[in-house]
Amino acid sequence: MRRHMLYLSLLLTPGIVLATPKNIIYMIGDGMGPAYLSAYRYFNDDKTTSEVENTIFDALWQGMASTYPDDDTYVTDSAAGATALATGFKSYNGAISVNRQHIPIGTMMQLAKKLGKANGILASSQINHATPASFLAHNKSRRNYDEIADMYLDYRIDGKPVADVMIGGGTKYFVREDRNLVNEFKQLGYQYTDDYTQLDSITTAPAMMLLAETALPAKLNSGFDAMLAPLTEKALQLLTPAKKGFVLMVEGSQIDWCGHDNDIACAMAEMDDFAKAIAVAKAYVDKHPDTLLVITADHETGGMSLGAAGEYQWLPDVVRKVKATGRSIAEQLQQAKSDTEALALWRTLTSISLTEEEQATLLATRQQDETKLRKLSNQLVAKYSYTGWTTGGHTAIDVAVLAYGKDAKAFAGFQDNTDIAKKLMQYIQQTK
Amino acid sequence: MRRHMLYLSLLLTPGIVLATPKNIIYMIGDGMGPAYLSAYRYFNDDKTTSEVENTIFDALWQGMASTYPDDDTYVTDSAAGATALATGFKSYNGAISVNRQHIPIGTMMQLAKKLGKANGILASSQINHATPASFLAHNKSRRNYDEIADMYLDYRIDGKPVADVMIGGGTKYFVREDRNLVNEFKQLGYQYTDDYTQLDSITTAPAMMLLAETALPAKLNSGFDAMLAPLTEKALQLLTPAKKGFVLMVEGSQIDWCGHDNDIACAMAEMDDFAKAIAVAKAYVDKHPDTLLVITADHETGGMSLGAAGEYQWLPDVVRKVKATGRSIAEQLQQAKSDTEALALWRTLTSISLTEEEQATLLATRQQDETKLRKLSNQLVAKYSYTGWTTGGHTAIDVAVLAYGKDAKAFAGFQDNTDIAKKLMQYIQQTK
Repeated sequence: MRRHMLYLSLLLTPGIVLATPKNIIYMIGDGMGPAYLSAYRYFNDDKTTSEVENTIFDALWQGMASTYPDDDTYVTDSAAGATALATGFKSYNGAISVNRQHIPIGTMMQLAKKLGKANGILASSQINHATPASFLAHNKSRRNYDEIADMYLDYRIDGKPVADVMIGGGTKYFVREDRNLVNEFKQLGYQYTDDYTQLDSITTAPAMMLLAETALPAKLNSGFDAMLAPLTEKALQLLTPAKKGFVLMVEGSQIDWCGHDNDIACAMAEMDDFAKAIAVAKAYVDKHPDTLLVITADHETGGMSLGAAGEYQWLPDVVRKVKATGRSIAEQLQQAKSDTEALALWRTLTSISLTEEEQATLLATRQQDETKLRKLSNQLVAKYSYTGWTTGGHTAIDVAVLAYGKDAKAFAGFQDNTDIAKKLMQYIQQTK
Repeated sequence: MRRHMLYLSLLLTPGIVLATPKNIIYMIGDGMGPAYLSAYRYFNDDKTTSEVENTIFDALWQGMASTYPDDDTYVTDSAAGATALATGFKSYNGAISVNRQHIPIGTMMQLAKKLGKANGILASSQINHATPASFLAHNKSRRNYDEIADMYLDYRIDGKPVADVMIGGGTKYFVREDRNLVNEFKQLGYQYTDDYTQLDSITTAPAMMLLAETALPAKLNSGFDAMLAPLTEKALQLLTPAKKGFVLMVEGSQIDWCGHDNDIACAMAEMDDFAKAIAVAKAYVDKHPDTLLVITADHETGGMSLGAAGEYQWLPDVVRKVKATGRSIAEQLQQAKSDTEALALWRTLTSISLTEEEQATLLATRQQDETKLRKLSNQLVAKYSYTGWTTGGHTAIDVAVLAYGKDAKAFAGFQDNTDIAKKLMQYIQQTK
């Protein structure tokens, strides 16, 4: 198709695949390290029972995956992580499905499209963010958002864009002064809406839903009980008619962003939203047993742990009572008209009783920039819940691999992130 | 046997066990959270190859386990963790195989002995430390070391102590002014040595080897290439003749202690020692296929992560060059005759070039107590290797479950730590 394009399929030896799924639902919790799964279990614990209830993550757990990139750091970014998960090849941090020489690496969705499958991407970030981008585009840098958005339209297989369904944020990149990609998609026959309340108006693929300028709102601030779940439902509904099956990638994009902020309440809300989307996917597999659901993360974010300062406890009750993200708390505290109002707001938003010294620090920081106040707010929630964080960046810790449905056991045990893509591409290659 | 003693076996419904192993090797990496397994892989990476080599942990990975105790903390200590792993019942932190009412809970080794199996315990701590203690004794508090040691001898099944082979440290507790348990064991026919170089003199079970006053030396300071591995070999050699098979518990006790100290070099050395012992056990399973090897941890220690301070890298090269534990470095620096000698020693022991400010802090701290100096030393190694730590205590993060040999797949997926014990006790119950 393209000169120099690496296709993993060429490298695959004819594998013995016992059961080839027709449809693949591939869910990526960005930044969702193993501690996030432990935390979410305890966060959800029904305290009226003596045991801790299993979560949907627990029920689907199959294996673990290493995430290191193709450089000396051992710590991947989301671009290299998604490139590995989308192509089966590792690359450098920042790469969108290109190798170190910037040569495009064929992605599983390009392969799927070539073989007649339909593709869908759904993300709670802008749809041209690193993770979804690595399934649909090639670029030497994840930061070239406009170029990546252009490629969603311009990169064609048999005359058609690679993705049949695209849902998430991103009007900023798709409706630009220099180019209106949304109009171009419409001209190609894509149904389109930018209104969350008008999803019912989208009835068939191909379709595009850009529901925010950049990212969708953080779950904790959104007022929604579930954001990703109904969108997952919608994507599956649109893809189901595809005769040769489909590949749908669903990203819980903002788990990572909460991790970068070291914001445990934000992280648990995003995990909850992701869990509800997984429940939708699992129910789909139950009704369509020719489907494989695979869930993993591109890396861990924040070095999160459930225990801090030498104390032998983690207090999800504290986390559960926090009603907004650290970003939102900081904004609201800065908008308060007085210190008294700010302190009252703090108590309403967090239910945490601060010491006098902490109150004074909070009020002093309120006069400084929002970043410092956000950081302090998140630190206080971490302190009172005994949540530990080691970094504002990513870590090299292995991530969980969950699977359900057809051939799910193929993902058991320890594997590299590239192995996940290789297995999925092997299924796709057997498209009939 | 005892009134009020809870026996899990009574609660077990007759399970369908497809393949019942005759021998069980149960290895517990105290404090070995999932990040320790990731770290050890990168610590061992052969930099001359492009991929990262799998470790023996990776090769045996089957599942994950939750570790929460029977209280509201979600964070277990080693006593409650080992009680769950040894009996199938959760208890409170500090409990040695007793429930909240201090009623003894039957352990898998007591059950094994009752059914004619032989038992062995091997630990790099004193052998009456929390983890091995929970397999052999009952006490309301792990701190009652003398009472626990007494019970190793006094608790009898058919007139005999529960353990046939005991290897580790602990002469302080077994050779006391008020009681010489070693002599009493000898009178019962136990072969005995306290000399690591005289292991060959121990030829048959029952046998006891107490090789240190309390714990064995830290691996990193020991000068040994492998400490636990030859002891594992010895324990297996002594237990193999047991006609009805055996249960051997091997604890890598000091992984946890390195974690408490937030000492990554110490932790990697203990992981390496544990890995070599696992290799011995794995080779044993290959030769004796009627054996099941299960490896897990009682909990995670330290909230360790591979990434800190926002940097996207972890530097195992820095860790690899550290030649002593933080405790040993602190001791040696305090013994240095001058600041110049201390700084030269620091460079020899760590290969880390400090800034002038850091050097000054190190020298100032050298005048204070050893604990502060140790902490500083470990913080500097963490800083230069980008290792993150969130606590000097434990965390609630799930731990890995590895298995190999007969019915190993029974440990796949997510489970609670009590489930591991329940499965093992089900095998033991079917002793023929």
